[in-house]
Amino acid sequence: MRPSRRAPDELRPVSIERAVARYAEGSCLIKFGETHVLVTASLEDKPPPWLRGTGKGWVTAEYAMLPRATHERTRRESSSGKPSGRTQEIQRLVGRSLRAVVDLVRLGEKQIMIDCDVLQADGGTRTASITGAWVALHDCFQWMVGRNMLNVSPLKDHVAAISCGISRGQAVLDLDYAEDSEAQTDANFVITGSGGLVEVQGTAEGAPFSEDQLIDMLALAKGGVAKLVALQKQAVAG
Amino acid sequence: MRPSRRAPDELRPVSIERAVARYAEGSCLIKFGETHVLVTASLEDKPPPWLRGTGKGWVTAEYAMLPRATHERTRRESSSGKPSGRTQEIQRLVGRSLRAVVDLVRLGEKQIMIDCDVLQADGGTRTASITGAWVALHDCFQWMVGRNMLNVSPLKDHVAAISCGISRGQAVLDLDYAEDSEAQTDANFVITGSGGLVEVQGTAEGAPFSEDQLIDMLALAKGGVAKLVALQKQAVAG
Amino acid sequence: MRPSRRAPDELRPVSIERAVARYAEGSCLIKFGETHVLVTASLEDKPPPWLRGTGKGWVTAEYAMLPRATHERTRRESSSGKPSGRTQEIQRLVGRSLRAVVDLVRLGEKQIMIDCDVLQADGGTRTASITGAWVALHDCFQWMVGRNMLNVSPLKDHVAAISCGISRGQAVLDLDYAEDSEAQTDANFVITGSGGLVEVQGTAEGAPFSEDQLIDMLALAKGGVAKLVALQKQAVAG
Amino acid sequence: MRPSRRAPDELRPVSIERAVARYAEGSCLIKFGETHVLVTASLEDKPPPWLRGTGKGWVTAEYAMLPRATHERTRRESSSGKPSGRTQEIQRLVGRSLRAVVDLVRLGEKQIMIDCDVLQADGGTRTASITGAWVALHDCFQWMVGRNMLNVSPLKDHVAAISCGISRGQAVLDLDYAEDSEAQTDANFVITGSGGLVEVQGTAEGAPFSEDQLIDMLALAKGGVAKLVALQKQAVAG
Amino acid sequence: MRPSRRAPDELRPVSIERAVARYAEGSCLIKFGETHVLVTASLEDKPPPWLRGTGKGWVTAEYAMLPRATHERTRRESSSGKPSGRTQEIQRLVGRSLRAVVDLVRLGEKQIMIDCDVLQADGGTRTASITGAWVALHDCFQWMVGRNMLNVSPLKDHVAAISCGISRGQAVLDLDYAEDSEAQTDANFVITGSGGLVEVQGTAEGAPFSEDQLIDMLALAKGGVAKLVALQKQAVAG
Amino acid sequence: MRPSRRAPDELRPVSIERAVARYAEGSCLIKFGETHVLVTASLEDKPPPWLRGTGKGWVTAEYAMLPRATHERTRRESSSGKPSGRTQEIQRLVGRSLRAVVDLVRLGEKQIMIDCDVLQADGGTRTASITGAWVALHDCFQWMVGRNMLNVSPLKDHVAAISCGISRGQAVLDLDYAEDSEAQTDANFVITGSGGLVEVQGTAEGAPFSEDQLIDMLALAKGGVAKLVALQKQAVAG
Repeated sequence: MRPSRRAPDELRPVSIERAVARYAEGSCLIKFGETHVLVTASLEDKPPPWLRGTGKGWVTAEYAMLPRATHERTRRESSSGKPSGRTQEIQRLVGRSLRAVVDLVRLGEKQIMIDCDVLQADGGTRTASITGAWVALHDCFQWMVGRNMLNVSPLKDHVAAISCGISRGQAVLDLDYAEDSEAQTDANFVITGSGGLVEVQGTAEGAPFSEDQLIDMLALAKGGVAKLVALQKQAVAG
Repeated sequence: MRPSRRAPDELRPVSIERAVARYAEGSCLIKFGETHVLVTASLEDKPPPWLRGTGKGWVTAEYAMLPRATHERTRRESSSGKPSGRTQEIQRLVGRSLRAVVDLVRLGEKQIMIDCDVLQADGGTRTASITGAWVALHDCFQWMVGRNMLNVSPLKDHVAAISCGISRGQAVLDLDYAEDSEAQTDANFVITGSGGLVEVQGTAEGAPFSEDQLIDMLALAKGGVAKLVALQKQAVAG
Repeated sequence: MRPSRRAPDELRPVSIERAVARYAEGSCLIKFGETHVLVTASLEDKPPPWLRGTGKGWVTAEYAMLPRATHERTRRESSSGKPSGRTQEIQRLVGRSLRAVVDLVRLGEKQIMIDCDVLQADGGTRTASITGAWVALHDCFQWMVGRNMLNVSPLKDHVAAISCGISRGQAVLDLDYAEDSEAQTDANFVITGSGGLVEVQGTAEGAPFSEDQLIDMLALAKGGVAKLVALQKQAVAG
Repeated sequence: MRPSRRAPDELRPVSIERAVARYAEGSCLIKFGETHVLVTASLEDKPPPWLRGTGKGWVTAEYAMLPRATHERTRRESSSGKPSGRTQEIQRLVGRSLRAVVDLVRLGEKQIMIDCDVLQADGGTRTASITGAWVALHDCFQWMVGRNMLNVSPLKDHVAAISCGISRGQAVLDLDYAEDSEAQTDANFVITGSGGLVEVQGTAEGAPFSEDQLIDMLALAKGGVAKLVALQKQAVAG
Repeated sequence: MRPSRRAPDELRPVSIERAVARYAEGSCLIKFGETHVLVTASLEDKPPPWLRGTGKGWVTAEYAMLPRATHERTRRESSSGKPSGRTQEIQRLVGRSLRAVVDLVRLGEKQIMIDCDVLQADGGTRTASITGAWVALHDCFQWMVGRNMLNVSPLKDHVAAISCGISRGQAVLDLDYAEDSEAQTDANFVITGSGGLVEVQGTAEGAPFSEDQLIDMLALAKGGVAKLVALQKQAVAG
Repeated sequence: MRPSRRAPDELRPVSIERAVARYAEGSCLIKFGETHVLVTASLEDKPPPWLRGTGKGWVTAEYAMLPRATHERTRRESSSGKPSGRTQEIQRLVGRSLRAVVDLVRLGEKQIMIDCDVLQADGGTRTASITGAWVALHDCFQWMVGRNMLNVSPLKDHVAAISCGISRGQAVLDLDYAEDSEAQTDANFVITGSGGLVEVQGTAEGAPFSEDQLIDMLALAKGGVAKLVALQKQAVAG
């Protein structure tokens, strides 16, 4: 039995509310249970310097937690003077995941900056961020299409992410903070709408894990992402 | 006629929603029209080093804006390596304003850290922050009383804040971003529930202002704060 | 009786010595009693980036204290890596105060950088800085007129600043460090030669202050600034 | 045909030279072809603050490249003021990988600091770092056993790492820089001597990869790590 | 003929005014011609951490220039975030020079912090700083003796410093900025009252210099320091 | 008798191995006994900004120690956020020393960046760095001549460096760490192939030193540099 009484392959309740930030070209508030992330997509006129003159655009991301998103207050990174290693890892992951489903040539010499700000954290903030970021990015592209800045959206596919773990010897889906703290293995999967793997990151927290356990987690993740993609579709259809 | 069609002494619609942050000892989401601030109060076991052994506690504050709280995306301060001068000014103001109504001896050797995170900004973020911070602080003290960490709340009075300005030659209350941008003079008033002045900050943006204009703005501010205090009372009674 | 035995409306002895820095376009050493500030005005060829092409110039300021300007040695800000919040507040205040009396279009695309370095601090360093900065700025503009870089000085008026406080229940003018430490309320006023208010900043250190006390302090400040402006006139005539 | 003419499952020539740093408790120079990493293990008297009093020790790592380890000179991170996101990711990975095979209770309240300094980089610097770090750590523990600071080495198993990729549609082992630059997918595997997975990180650089490709890469990695572990055994036996 | 029309072995006019900083335990304003340095000595209760428990004290120094001490305004180091390499070199030199004539055991577990702030710079700021620092340090020790914190001053000797150079083929003493800019070789000598060498730093700016030129400069420096020591004696006798 | 049993004028065994860094335009591994420095020379297309348009080039240097080059591990400067004062002093010294023997006009608008990375430190790292840097620079210029980027090498002379000290009352050459720690005086000499002095830096660690001792050390240094220059010639002839 999981601490949350969920079945091994059961997601937490997931909701996606669009257009929550008045000024952003795309935005949503995504909730994976008690994990709440506000995601915005901001259109910037110019791509990063190394792309100027190439005809290609860029999608990148920043990530932060409000100080009291967590059980214990976390020190603000603007006080410590730089983003932590963990923050930078997540930022790079979110950016890579989105770029895997965007046609950067079709976007042209623009940059989309995704901001993922965690209002409340109960495990899985990076996977909620990626899943919500797809929606904000979709809406940003629709905004551009609506203003004739693009003929067609450069989105090639959906992308979503989910965590898995080995907890009490069993592979489980979408760990909350309590379960994550006691899991022996923690893995994150970023998968496209058509089932392609974009990122697989599995880490043994205590004992190493086996190839079979990796396969089990991957199977759970594919099921979880399929449900998240369905929710994305429903959200942008709404 | 003001850009918002409000009367000169008319506040924007103000709402206060309590207990919005699951883990914080006190919290609220305060809205002054399209300005939305999430405020949390976090209890910390120890006061700052210079108060250890004195029997006194401390209340301090941090302030930040989400990058896309604004029309144009603002760079994250964790990227630039330090809080800006404006951020530090606001943080110091929020802390001073709250300490004016807290009995720090009664609090004892604890610190309350107030975090004001602006989700959306349309002018008046510092006044909304102070007004909401009082509610989060109130709830934090109630939380401590409920756990017998305090016999009685150390709050001595209400405190709230409002901006005024001289716009098109007339004193007006609670400027939004559009009005603030064109105002000749900008002033912020922090006032207690019993009408005492905690902070008066008036700045000429263009031409200097007169003593009479200062008096006019002060009169508007006193009326505005009285309404905000009534809303605080209603919120914590709810 | 004030600790310094001055009357409530009595300034400390004020002196202004011009042309103390051999290389600066304008400079003075201003003393408010034991508070000594060396102010220089440096002409820079270009305005800040956001003004380029607008035909307008800029006046800005930096402020620092020598480490042993104070009773206890203060850590050098170059060691701590960034100006403190207090330093930034003062810098912004000095810059705003001067810009209120400068015709930036007449100045044209130049920048004047004011440096206020406190050699010795006994309260009122920001008010001495502003009052002295006007003299250094005046001399810098005269230097430019003398070299035909300007037809006429872009200075529109005098500007000076003074502190007031509520000490032992009474409004008093120009607090020194000892009096400032025990005052309940501390206020700074920046006022032009023609009596317009540029900045009003009043802060309750302990109990809130009343509207009447604010009016009393404002009256003292107007008298004090009138005397400071007379001293500025005398200095630049000398 | 691979650019290096190696078979898909063929490692580059690997060598491990021990005791290359006169002062370090353990050290080696490990070469994966033209990738050369100098690894040292330094014994520190105290564990990090959060472990004091727990009886447990810690193993952590730092990673850097000499500026001209690369084709183009890379800016020194001490000039830019902080380790990059990539550097921090690698440092955390090396530390986690080693801790997976160390009995931290047996180590007791000490810290071993691993330094991985890349003298020359031709792809696979993080996998060479982990593989060499095991040898330096082994020798550090032997040094401690030799001085009766430990009864028995706290090493529970070997650990080594290798990269795989999908290049020209085929899974290949141990990519050099040229092959890495053109690979569609890049994956790193950290595996113990007994075949347990410690870390799996697969990233699609262009098109997503399939589950089958992940399985293929894992099979190659297991074979590669087995050879690396044999080389570690041979090195420490020498 | 030197640009300043001085003889090769002629110092600029040197003056030393003591007790210029109201709060410092020792201070002076030293002038080497148009180079003006304000030096303070601050007594600190504790030595640096590495000396605690040894019974020994420490003397250290910090150095800075006011932004407009120079012909062109120099950026404030607190803005750039750290002291420059040149600043750190000078700080270390001043500290070493003073410690060479202080009995640190006799001082006991205290630290004296010397601050050298250059008000105006016309070459030779480091040599003026060292020469003035000896006076401030002397007065600080006298202050301590006067309060029975020391039985006897821990000063063992005088120390002073002077620059020399090879200019237009000739060895010259005490270069001002104009002469320094055109000199081929620049050297600084720190010498005690009894003629011992504490520091010799000679640098070829263009062509290398010869052993004979080094000997010539050393002879000039010994004569110059003897005159500076006489001025120190006269100053502290005054 | 010296701790190393060397004669007073005896260098440690010195070796220079060229072309140790696969990607650098010039490189060597230089050993002064147990002090080992890896030096690379990197050609950069542009000189620093202040030389653009002048037709002149530049040679500059960076210096670092691997953390465990030393007996006790040293903290990485990328962790502390900036190069230390000592590091900056050495970097500036290496750059100045090389520029003294390079015709910067003949080099043209290019920059050569020298990186000196100390793999193992046993005293004299700065002198080994300068001596090795000449070889790396020589090879970089040959590389450019070989590609017709230069008609002729801009090197005008050899340059090398050696330390001396007063140890147990006697002048000695090329101190190792043990001897350096107990020496009363420490001096570094940078001398050209034709015997010109580029830099003389002598520092009393304890008691001051005499003019005679300075002359003695200079004589030793000249002999030592002559041997180092012979080794440079042999290395580049090899």
